[in-house]
Amino acid sequence: MTQPRYTPLAQSLPASVPFVGPETQERQRGAPFAARLGANENIFGPSPKAIAAMQGSLGEIWKYGDAESHDLRAALAAHHSVAPENIMIGEGIDGLLGYLVRLLIGDGDAVVTSLGAYPTFNYHVAGFGGVLHTVPYKDDHEDPAALFARAAEVDAKLVYLANPDNPMGSWHSGADLLAAMDALPEGCLLLLDEAYIDCAPDRTALPIDISDPRVIRTRTFSKAYGMAGARVGYVLAEAELIAAFNKVRNHFGMNRTAQIGALAALQDQAWLAEVLDRISTARDRIAQIARDNGLTPLPSATNFVAIDCGSDGAFAKSVLEDLVDQGVFVRMPFAAPQNRCIRVSCGPEDQLDAFARALPIALERARNG
Amino acid sequence: MTQPRYTPLAQSLPASVPFVGPETQERQRGAPFAARLGANENIFGPSPKAIAAMQGSLGEIWKYGDAESHDLRAALAAHHSVAPENIMIGEGIDGLLGYLVRLLIGDGDAVVTSLGAYPTFNYHVAGFGGVLHTVPYKDDHEDPAALFARAAEVDAKLVYLANPDNPMGSWHSGADLLAAMDALPEGCLLLLDEAYIDCAPDRTALPIDISDPRVIRTRTFSKAYGMAGARVGYVLAEAELIAAFNKVRNHFGMNRTAQIGALAALQDQAWLAEVLDRISTARDRIAQIARDNGLTPLPSATNFVAIDCGSDGAFAKSVLEDLVDQGVFVRMPFAAPQNRCIRVSCGPEDQLDAFARALPIALERARNG
Repeated sequence: MTQPRYTPLAQSLPASVPFVGPETQERQRGAPFAARLGANENIFGPSPKAIAAMQGSLGEIWKYGDAESHDLRAALAAHHSVAPENIMIGEGIDGLLGYLVRLLIGDGDAVVTSLGAYPTFNYHVAGFGGVLHTVPYKDDHEDPAALFARAAEVDAKLVYLANPDNPMGSWHSGADLLAAMDALPEGCLLLLDEAYIDCAPDRTALPIDISDPRVIRTRTFSKAYGMAGARVGYVLAEAELIAAFNKVRNHFGMNRTAQIGALAALQDQAWLAEVLDRISTARDRIAQIARDNGLTPLPSATNFVAIDCGSDGAFAKSVLEDLVDQGVFVRMPFAAPQNRCIRVSCGPEDQLDAFARALPIALERARNG
Repeated sequence: MTQPRYTPLAQSLPASVPFVGPETQERQRGAPFAARLGANENIFGPSPKAIAAMQGSLGEIWKYGDAESHDLRAALAAHHSVAPENIMIGEGIDGLLGYLVRLLIGDGDAVVTSLGAYPTFNYHVAGFGGVLHTVPYKDDHEDPAALFARAAEVDAKLVYLANPDNPMGSWHSGADLLAAMDALPEGCLLLLDEAYIDCAPDRTALPIDISDPRVIRTRTFSKAYGMAGARVGYVLAEAELIAAFNKVRNHFGMNRTAQIGALAALQDQAWLAEVLDRISTARDRIAQIARDNGLTPLPSATNFVAIDCGSDGAFAKSVLEDLVDQGVFVRMPFAAPQNRCIRVSCGPEDQLDAFARALPIALERARNG
């Protein structure tokens, strides 16, 4: 019997996963992690009001979610002072990245990103046949001028920029980004990933000019709002681009409980403020742990801290693997020279205590290994 | 400023939705529905143990879901006596249909389905540039022989067949399907949508021969298991085809609570049996309401009943619109001659009472309108 006839593109793709999840690692090592500090989850969790709203909604989980996510969309529109037509809700930023890439990128189309930036975006670009061009980080910052210059060179249809950045935690001011956008070539859409923007200092976000067709931005309830497992992200852009998502999206793809939880989370800004305080405290603690071990923490506008381990990628990888062996789940950047760092997510005291205990042991072994 | 440069395919697609959701209709009419009998949701809901498991899990909603859905996949593998490698979990059947179409169908590739079958499948085919060929129903049943013959004629890479069928509720025996598959052309994959199989009589399912590369089947927790809002579906197929989903799927797209709820729902087969009893009772009641009004209910192996309104599509549409005006949400088939029917989902007594009250009024007005 013959096999299914895949498209040439599908045949060419590897069956890869952009990230190995912590549960997979736990199964591989045969033991749970004592500290889960690798996925930039927000261990402080969502608003208790969001949890209560979700729990209360489960009696109606037999209903499909609202295909328009009307209530959440309306609330987000009010929150950002835009119209609901400027917002599309989706199954996390990952899902929305897939839809956007699908709308713009076909076989051989050029896309630009930073070398070592978000792998799931790269996965989508490859998955739709796009050709990825990368530019290096500059002093551990993504480099808007270089990104846009490369976009002009290769006639890119899409350029990816995260602000604040993952995995480095660095950031640009919105004013600087706006100025840099003067060099964004015609016909190239800026995909501005603001997954971590809620954790960033004031004036980090690019000012919202919702009629500007040059930029689409992604936001999420997975980070500061503490609901990664719910899978709620959204894009903000001018209305015509937003409407285009209806050509390709999974209209009934949203979990109904997640829609309700995100709305409740958005409405509890007091909780968000409290969580941001805890994140700030945890960032300081992680930085202190790094310094206590003779390492250099990088400034961060996110819910994680990149720690420069003071050597090369191989050394950082040894440190990371030893931490993982000790039950402390962390991750690290993929590309040099950023891969001299490990990346540690914010979390409560007990998990950072576990990291503090494990780090000197890991460093010792990596140095002697 | 220039607009984003969409792919030629994206430019050609309409910004359409395969279905208008009941919430959208409620907003349009300015009032909630008294009875929600249009989306084939399972109003009897999921196992209370599943609800409790989901409620209990929400304290950890800050965690991403397991990218492998390992525990659910293992439990489903045991349930179906296959290997975990024969199962892929996804964001409802709708999401999985999108991935499968993407793997197989590119510009101009031929696909075969029944005229008036599941619109969301057609949406995905169009969305990836496929060319849809349709064959008519035969006596309100999908017609495997005609589907496979057409597939051979047009060199289809994929043929869609739902067993039991939506929107008609009709079904074939697994033995008859297996015999019909002798005529399935080489290189054409049978996509067997078994969303409603749990509601069907014994021996309706195509026997599972998991090494047979000719067929992939879809299953869901949205229907008999009562968790439409959770968005959990899965495909069953030989391992190589299942592995191909890892080339294109959103690996971290599953809602964590939904994974946990589906596992608990699967483990409560006693609840499933009880719900199936209630569905059977409700089917009988819907049929009786139809007969009380001089209409003909069609036999059903699903959680809904198609009711032949005894005239043409225009008449059935008038009846449907009047029911909707009265606050009773129902739907109807899209294509003639099936569109002489309305389609009514099973539900508890009070909702069927509302339907029983509204139907004679709707018929009277449609006849005099």
